[in-house]
Amino acid sequence: MERIPILKMGKLLLVTIQVDMHDRLAMTLQDDLTTRIVKDRAKGVLIDISALDLVDSFIGRMINNIAAMAKILDADTVLVGMQPAVAITLVELGLTLEGVKTALNVDRGMKMLGLGGMS
Amino acid sequence: MERIPILKMGKLLLVTIQVDMHDRLAMTLQDDLTTRIVKDRAKGVLIDISALDLVDSFIGRMINNIAAMAKILDADTVLVGMQPAVAITLVELGLTLEGVKTALNVDRGMKMLGLGGMS
Repeated sequence: MERIPILKMGKLLLVTIQVDMHDRLAMTLQDDLTTRIVKDRAKGVLIDISALDLVDSFIGRMINNIAAMAKILDADTVLVGMQPAVAITLVELGLTLEGVKTALNVDRGMKMLGLGGMS
Repeated sequence: MERIPILKMGKLLLVTIQVDMHDRLAMTLQDDLTTRIVKDRAKGVLIDISALDLVDSFIGRMINNIAAMAKILDADTVLVGMQPAVAITLVELGLTLEGVKTALNVDRGMKMLGLGGMS
């Protein structure tokens, strides 16, 4: 698979990361996402990582980068669906994902962004 | 990757298919999705296939099955994000996905399900 789909939900973009990230895929995602934020006038980005059993420093850095880019483009980023084991690993690795907001799931992430929690 | 994540958005479940489906993964998805429809009392299921360049008869049958199972559990299924080339292939293969509703994207799919289009 060569690119990760970006789904538009109102003023929000949703990215679900399911596959192992590598350099090129991460670059493509950053390009696509920044383009879509501008094109769709998005106010928020939700990154769902519920399918990931492991978040290493590469993915951590990519998420930080995406959040920083989105911020400059006036969109907030919320990381959702983190598995308990991933949270443990992140802290143990010293990757605290500063500057990235987190929420338990997509519903809560939407509410956090103030863009229509639906339940 | 062993399972496809199912995201809850209000009364709706969203499944993004990004990886090549095989028998076991399809079975797991059917199990997970039916369980989640009951557990989350979902009224609708959105299946996003925007990442798929190809939908063969196996995936077509899986989508039909999921829609039929969801229907019995009182949830509607809408297939969203189909690429133009996929539509062409489906018709050429004679796979018309009868019984499955389609929408251009997630936003329109949500509106079709009457569960909060957000734009």
